[in-house]
Amino acid sequence: MSEKNDTFKLLDPDQLNLELIEAQYALKDTRAKDNAKSLVILMSGVELAGKGESVKQLREWVDPRYLRVVADPAHLFKVNRTFWEPYARFIPAEGQMLVMFSNWYSDLIATAMHVSEPMDDTLFDAYIKDMQSFERDLRNNHVEVIKVWFDLSWKSLQKRLDKMDSSEQRWHKLHGLDWRNKKQYDNLQKLRSRFTDDWYVIDCEDEESRDQQFAQYILKHLKDIPEYPKKAVLDWQQAVVPEELLKPRNDSIDKDEYKEELKKLTAKVADTLRFDGRRVVIVFEGMDAAGKGGAIKRIVKKLDPREYEIYPIAAPEKYELARPYQWRFWTKVCEDEALSIFDRSWYGRVLVERIDGFATEVEWQRAYDEINRFEKDLYDSNSVVIKFWLAIDKDEQEKRFKSREEMPYKNYKITPDDWHNRENWDQYLEAAADMLQRTSTLHAPWHVIATNDKYTARLEVLRAILTHFKTDE
Amino acid sequence: MSEKNDTFKLLDPDQLNLELIEAQYALKDTRAKDNAKSLVILMSGVELAGKGESVKQLREWVDPRYLRVVADPAHLFKVNRTFWEPYARFIPAEGQMLVMFSNWYSDLIATAMHVSEPMDDTLFDAYIKDMQSFERDLRNNHVEVIKVWFDLSWKSLQKRLDKMDSSEQRWHKLHGLDWRNKKQYDNLQKLRSRFTDDWYVIDCEDEESRDQQFAQYILKHLKDIPEYPKKAVLDWQQAVVPEELLKPRNDSIDKDEYKEELKKLTAKVADTLRFDGRRVVIVFEGMDAAGKGGAIKRIVKKLDPREYEIYPIAAPEKYELARPYQWRFWTKVCEDEALSIFDRSWYGRVLVERIDGFATEVEWQRAYDEINRFEKDLYDSNSVVIKFWLAIDKDEQEKRFKSREEMPYKNYKITPDDWHNRENWDQYLEAAADMLQRTSTLHAPWHVIATNDKYTARLEVLRAILTHFKTDE
Repeated sequence: MSEKNDTFKLLDPDQLNLELIEAQYALKDTRAKDNAKSLVILMSGVELAGKGESVKQLREWVDPRYLRVVADPAHLFKVNRTFWEPYARFIPAEGQMLVMFSNWYSDLIATAMHVSEPMDDTLFDAYIKDMQSFERDLRNNHVEVIKVWFDLSWKSLQKRLDKMDSSEQRWHKLHGLDWRNKKQYDNLQKLRSRFTDDWYVIDCEDEESRDQQFAQYILKHLKDIPEYPKKAVLDWQQAVVPEELLKPRNDSIDKDEYKEELKKLTAKVADTLRFDGRRVVIVFEGMDAAGKGGAIKRIVKKLDPREYEIYPIAAPEKYELARPYQWRFWTKVCEDEALSIFDRSWYGRVLVERIDGFATEVEWQRAYDEINRFEKDLYDSNSVVIKFWLAIDKDEQEKRFKSREEMPYKNYKITPDDWHNRENWDQYLEAAADMLQRTSTLHAPWHVIATNDKYTARLEVLRAILTHFKTDE
Repeated sequence: MSEKNDTFKLLDPDQLNLELIEAQYALKDTRAKDNAKSLVILMSGVELAGKGESVKQLREWVDPRYLRVVADPAHLFKVNRTFWEPYARFIPAEGQMLVMFSNWYSDLIATAMHVSEPMDDTLFDAYIKDMQSFERDLRNNHVEVIKVWFDLSWKSLQKRLDKMDSSEQRWHKLHGLDWRNKKQYDNLQKLRSRFTDDWYVIDCEDEESRDQQFAQYILKHLKDIPEYPKKAVLDWQQAVVPEELLKPRNDSIDKDEYKEELKKLTAKVADTLRFDGRRVVIVFEGMDAAGKGGAIKRIVKKLDPREYEIYPIAAPEKYELARPYQWRFWTKVCEDEALSIFDRSWYGRVLVERIDGFATEVEWQRAYDEINRFEKDLYDSNSVVIKFWLAIDKDEQEKRFKSREEMPYKNYKITPDDWHNRENWDQYLEAAADMLQRTSTLHAPWHVIATNDKYTARLEVLRAILTHFKTDE
């Protein structure tokens, strides 16, 4: 934490008010434009320093309709939850501002101060690093994160505690720790000294200067309308399209044999998923008509619909477009289902969005890292991430398209979009090759399954799922 | 429960599939049109009857992208939560279908069967009645609710339990009660016999017939595209506009006296709200520039922003318009803040929407009852609902508009909309008169506060809030 504020001067409040309003409306006007952003303000600091007062003052200086305040109680870290999970749903739309009293840093500090043994510095620093990566992805995706520490000396804190009236005291007790305890105060200061230097630190001795410093920081960021680069600087290293995508082939299997094997495998998958305590996330990608729906049907065959959720992913809605592209997936994986199956997924960013130009060059090229980070977070929070690319050849696809068109009750499954995507067949193969190369990780590997023979393909999907779990056999 | 299904015939599955798809797409096409609706399917019944199987089959016969399944664990009733609260956020947009394994009826049954003493029949029936009212409001607001009971005889249930494999058994145990207990089975049947006769009952002895009956019920409702009446049948009984709206007058107060009194009252309000365990919901309505913002500022003066949420209500977003007009408020009051303040509210339905024609005659005339029901639900779940109409006269408004236009940092507060609304002054007074007459209830009374003198008005608002609580004085 090092950000100094040597140049700070008190402004005429009416002038500050006017500038804030104007900057806020300028931000609002960026919505759905190339330079759009939203602001997320993370609050942290010493109790009684005046976080609440500063936000109240800010609320009076801006149009409160575009400033939301979130103040959950602290979420102590849990092994099976990512640090961003409790907050994902609050991430504001472009043009909006959000103040978060509770946030991943306040949770980290609360966790570190509440555990019986002190949290290891290495672990603490590792959390901070993960948080910074998350914030960088947010920023790249139009959500700017501002972090403010409200600081107060031990002496002033004690003085303010003396002066508090009883009603306030009671309320503050609910939230905080024991602020009469010097050791605890020192521990807090020690922890925050490990924060990175992109924090603003406000000395809260003087109230007017505190509120103005806070508001002036916000103003600075409101005024800073970004320009996102679109063209990549370096040439893209296209991966070679592997044989398994170019000529997917699998053996066919006798129907009776298939049925028998299917019965065994579906029971085993159901049994395995039920026994495993972890969240399981299964992703399906692949050309249209490659058999995603059929494979999903077999995974859930012996499960009850109450045990899983299937998310068929289509084009994002307007309110989803106003947020980071991963946002609609962040909120879905937070739903706590034991098993979530994505029929298409966040990989749309590097497939259809890349090919049809919905993402800029810089955006889709950056997305591989963003996706790897996201899946690593899931893995670190005890989730099993299993990804399938179903590979079909072009002739077989045409056959299936035509058969769908002929069957009235399957007709809805075939749309002009499907024929359009087919025209870009080679581009999809290239995009898939890049995706497989860049996002096949140890914690979330891809399985490429040839689906010319549907029966074999379905069995292979089931077998691949089982490889992610320790089973008896 | 009486709905018989004498005419049921098995259909060719492909034919049923086709009809379901076509009906589903027709429903989808009603979005944002006059005849739009969504379908909510409430599932209940005997364990192992086959609810899950039937939904799985349905999912294969429709386009699963427009069918969502919700399966929370049961929410046992709590004194401070309305029965619809856990489910409000799931209510689907027009054109969508939602299957709810968990729902208010399954919660009611779970509550009735889990309490140590049997639930009193009168109370049980009262819940059912409230639920029916809620469903009627949903239906009127384009969300059709279908209720299906999956029935199975004691003998068949025992047979199915015998045949279950161990993995399934384990899973079912998590959800259910003890299905080997005849007394408990009988109790369940006794409870459901008190359900109303708008339930479909499916005998689940035969699986094919069960799945088809279920799908055919859904088909019937998919096909039934509603026509909502727009013109009211009876003449509207316009309330007389009371003097307090026509000529709002309050006494002015000396500034020093105001300050002293304000200090006392804001502290008392903060203290009172902190001590009261209940949720508090405060609503502000009134002409533009009547002083809503200023009054709200004083209510929260001694509170920390973490203790309350202010909701400034503007025109609904597209995804909100696709749901009942109260939906965005249902989800907000579920947020569990101790204090929620609405700067404009659900009363928009009978004010701006009535006047500017966003609601049909039938819709706004029906809304008074819907609002009363909603507020009664809040009251019954231990919430305090406090409503303010801030009354200003037309000359004073003009003065304030002009002063806002002159002050650069208040300029954003005045828009062409405000001048437009001012042109409809008399209509707003009539709408307000109707609103006051029809929604001033014992559990949620209106306070009309004259605001020509802002100081007096603010103090009166604070005093009015205190009347809702038992205080020492």
